[in-house]
Amino acid sequence: MRTRFHDWPCSVARTLELVEPWSALVLREIFYGVRRFDALQANLGLARNVLAQRLARLVEEGVLARVEYQQRPVRCEYRLTDKGRALFDVVLALMRFGDEWLAPEGEPVLLMSRRTGERVRPVVVDEQTRERIDLRDVIAKPGPGMPPEVIERAGDRFRKD
Amino acid sequence: MRTRFHDWPCSVARTLELVEPWSALVLREIFYGVRRFDALQANLGLARNVLAQRLARLVEEGVLARVEYQQRPVRCEYRLTDKGRALFDVVLALMRFGDEWLAPEGEPVLLMSRRTGERVRPVVVDEQTRERIDLRDVIAKPGPGMPPEVIERAGDRFRKD
Repeated sequence: MRTRFHDWPCSVARTLELVEPWSALVLREIFYGVRRFDALQANLGLARNVLAQRLARLVEEGVLARVEYQQRPVRCEYRLTDKGRALFDVVLALMRFGDEWLAPEGEPVLLMSRRTGERVRPVVVDEQTRERIDLRDVIAKPGPGMPPEVIERAGDRFRKD
Repeated sequence: MRTRFHDWPCSVARTLELVEPWSALVLREIFYGVRRFDALQANLGLARNVLAQRLARLVEEGVLARVEYQQRPVRCEYRLTDKGRALFDVVLALMRFGDEWLAPEGEPVLLMSRRTGERVRPVVVDEQTRERIDLRDVIAKPGPGMPPEVIERAGDRFRKD
């Protein structure tokens, strides 16, 4: 049985649970502007029931909204919510790492800005300073969502400073 | 059987294969500065054989290096390689999303800068402009690593502009 991570006090594990590989591929198509079941199915080559299940989960998680775009007969499409749009950043960070470290044959996909025509290269920075974040400069402190018993168990892991 | 994504022409899927939840938790400990098997095992509460397997995989993937720090008896620790340090950005992006969208009780962990004492909040920006990347502004083009037959099959997905 797969371990469930969504109730762990760890934002990394929770997000990974949401963007497991199949969901990430569905999201990739949605980010490309594909919104309808049949087109998603054709592009991904997924079995219909598997795709239906992934989409239902992403709707349930509030990442996608299922919207009727036609009344007779009823037809639906899937649109990103604000939460879904926020996931784009995660996908960009995953993509940048993969391009740099896991694609010896070159980047499979290049991102370009419509506005400027320039290539877009995602990097992770500090929101305030817009500088790259140096692992050696960062200290982890328990936040408001960390259960006290975990802090207790963690011992000096949270007291490196 | 789990589908293997590492040979797909998709940098997102490949990276997700590398940072599946258990590996991500091991990396979290390493980022916290924990380097020895016994300490990792105690902090994660993982079975020794499972942890050994994850560590071996991360070493094999070039994310961690196994380094002898003592000769008699031989003792080893695990250190991040450059590739491993680059994964920190991915983990930061995952964490930010989880903090914002999956932690109604508040952030489990806060990141602080040693240097400035200020809180560090990761965001994804364009490397050049240091501005947030707007999904609607981005076009995907096939890159050098995209197999021609995939471009063929993709039809107009790569020709949205």
